[in-house]
Amino acid sequence: MSQVYDRVALIGLGLIASSMFWAIKRAGLAGEVTGYARSAETRETARRIGLCDRVCDSAREAAEGADLVVLCVPVGAMGAVAAEIASVLKPGATVTDVGSVKRHVITAVQPHIPQGVHFVPAHPLAGTEHSGPEAGFAELYDNRWCLLVPVEGSDPQAVARLRALWEGMGAHVDEMDADHHDLVLAVTSHAPHLIAYTMVGVADDLRRVTDSEVIKYSAAGFRDFTRIAASDPTMWRDVFLTNKDATLEILGRFTEELFALQRAIRTGDGEHLFDYFTRTRAIRRGIIEAGQDTDAPDFGRGQVKA
Amino acid sequence: MSQVYDRVALIGLGLIASSMFWAIKRAGLAGEVTGYARSAETRETARRIGLCDRVCDSAREAAEGADLVVLCVPVGAMGAVAAEIASVLKPGATVTDVGSVKRHVITAVQPHIPQGVHFVPAHPLAGTEHSGPEAGFAELYDNRWCLLVPVEGSDPQAVARLRALWEGMGAHVDEMDADHHDLVLAVTSHAPHLIAYTMVGVADDLRRVTDSEVIKYSAAGFRDFTRIAASDPTMWRDVFLTNKDATLEILGRFTEELFALQRAIRTGDGEHLFDYFTRTRAIRRGIIEAGQDTDAPDFGRGQVKA
Repeated sequence: MSQVYDRVALIGLGLIASSMFWAIKRAGLAGEVTGYARSAETRETARRIGLCDRVCDSAREAAEGADLVVLCVPVGAMGAVAAEIASVLKPGATVTDVGSVKRHVITAVQPHIPQGVHFVPAHPLAGTEHSGPEAGFAELYDNRWCLLVPVEGSDPQAVARLRALWEGMGAHVDEMDADHHDLVLAVTSHAPHLIAYTMVGVADDLRRVTDSEVIKYSAAGFRDFTRIAASDPTMWRDVFLTNKDATLEILGRFTEELFALQRAIRTGDGEHLFDYFTRTRAIRRGIIEAGQDTDAPDFGRGQVKA
Repeated sequence: MSQVYDRVALIGLGLIASSMFWAIKRAGLAGEVTGYARSAETRETARRIGLCDRVCDSAREAAEGADLVVLCVPVGAMGAVAAEIASVLKPGATVTDVGSVKRHVITAVQPHIPQGVHFVPAHPLAGTEHSGPEAGFAELYDNRWCLLVPVEGSDPQAVARLRALWEGMGAHVDEMDADHHDLVLAVTSHAPHLIAYTMVGVADDLRRVTDSEVIKYSAAGFRDFTRIAASDPTMWRDVFLTNKDATLEILGRFTEELFALQRAIRTGDGEHLFDYFTRTRAIRRGIIEAGQDTDAPDFGRGQVKA
């Protein structure tokens, strides 16, 4: 793989940025990668484990002279970081981000982008329940999707170059409009996360079922929910606050359907339940056929090498 | 491992029974294992893949002379099967089951158990989203829990022997009262499954987001839900119809909590969201410490050998 950017700056050094670093290095996609994290402890860890060619003590220092600046901070912090680095951005450079919400990020970041600098929002659909600089690994983006969300007037060459970077990191790339992105993600990610958080919270609250029982007997089902519900609290708080409308719309639909199924249980309408459960099976088959998951027994966990 | 029963009969040959067969064989826990499935196609498959030492064409034939009869049919069918085999049960034999609901199974099965035959209900907390005779594998119960739910007057020796079988198949064994079992399972399994089914159904319904988009962009979150929602429709219909009260109670609590979180999103109460999400993280840590899941990155899926 040939070099796509001379210098890349990663602002924020969590799971996504650290995985980007290892994936960039794996394929030789950049000459130098600088990094910055707000917390001194994170910068210390990054230096210790060799995360980034150069760890800087300010976002401005990391971004200065970079050909690509990647904002890898929680969605709610994107605007402030963009304002901070704006004046050191190199003419012709591209600013991108990895936020899970796109309309809000565009509204918050775009006003700070100087004339002559490109802004190409992006969102890699990949993650684990772990966070922090040590959570990253080079394979995170392999065979996953990264959505580019070009804004009005995004330079096609800047978009193509960012696409090449993500493809070089192993991802498939698609382009999408910001509002549609936010609705699709509300369905596939944001609402499911809130629902999982809620169910885990309910279990925790329930006095008659002790925590140790919930933990001990967490078969498939709840166990999967806890994994989702272990994701980074700051990141998810920001997602819900900034993709409010789409998330609330989907949750409204969800509640409506849930009430219908609860009524079917209450009235003993087995046919309704059976038909519903049969329909949802088909979606699962589609996901396996689309290569976005394995159908290994026990969800692949029994055979983990690590 | 030494033999625990001379002859074991598996009535119903889905994921649970087929995994039991391979686990019994792995450890040499039984002399002969007979099997029966209602569908001729399933019996055909079982014969072809060598599932069971002898596949019978009736439940009575399979159960006759067995020292342990395991009812591995959907919860709603347990009573009818028990009635069918009652008259051929050997004096001193034990009847057990693997149903996800215990109070209903006890009510449906116990009246059919003849004098001199032991009845020890059980529930292995293990599964995958696959079903059918080819879904089973010997490792399914390794390091998982099996709950025994002895009824009034269950013979301690019969209970101990069944415990030895499950331990021989790799499981940890605990005993629990039927009603408490049904409540714990409503929290850890039944309510989460209904919620996952609901969310996947909502995604399928949504007109503005096409199915192909939902499938293509299903990152963690929704992807986990679809796996849960791909479980056997008949089994789950019966679970909800027969554990109605506990499931509806938990769903009521769930809805209450979900509304509180929706209100926090609507009013922009980030602190409420952050605190809630931080609390749920701790439960996840507990599950990993309890050895009921791996914390391998990407949920272990990226490294699946199969």
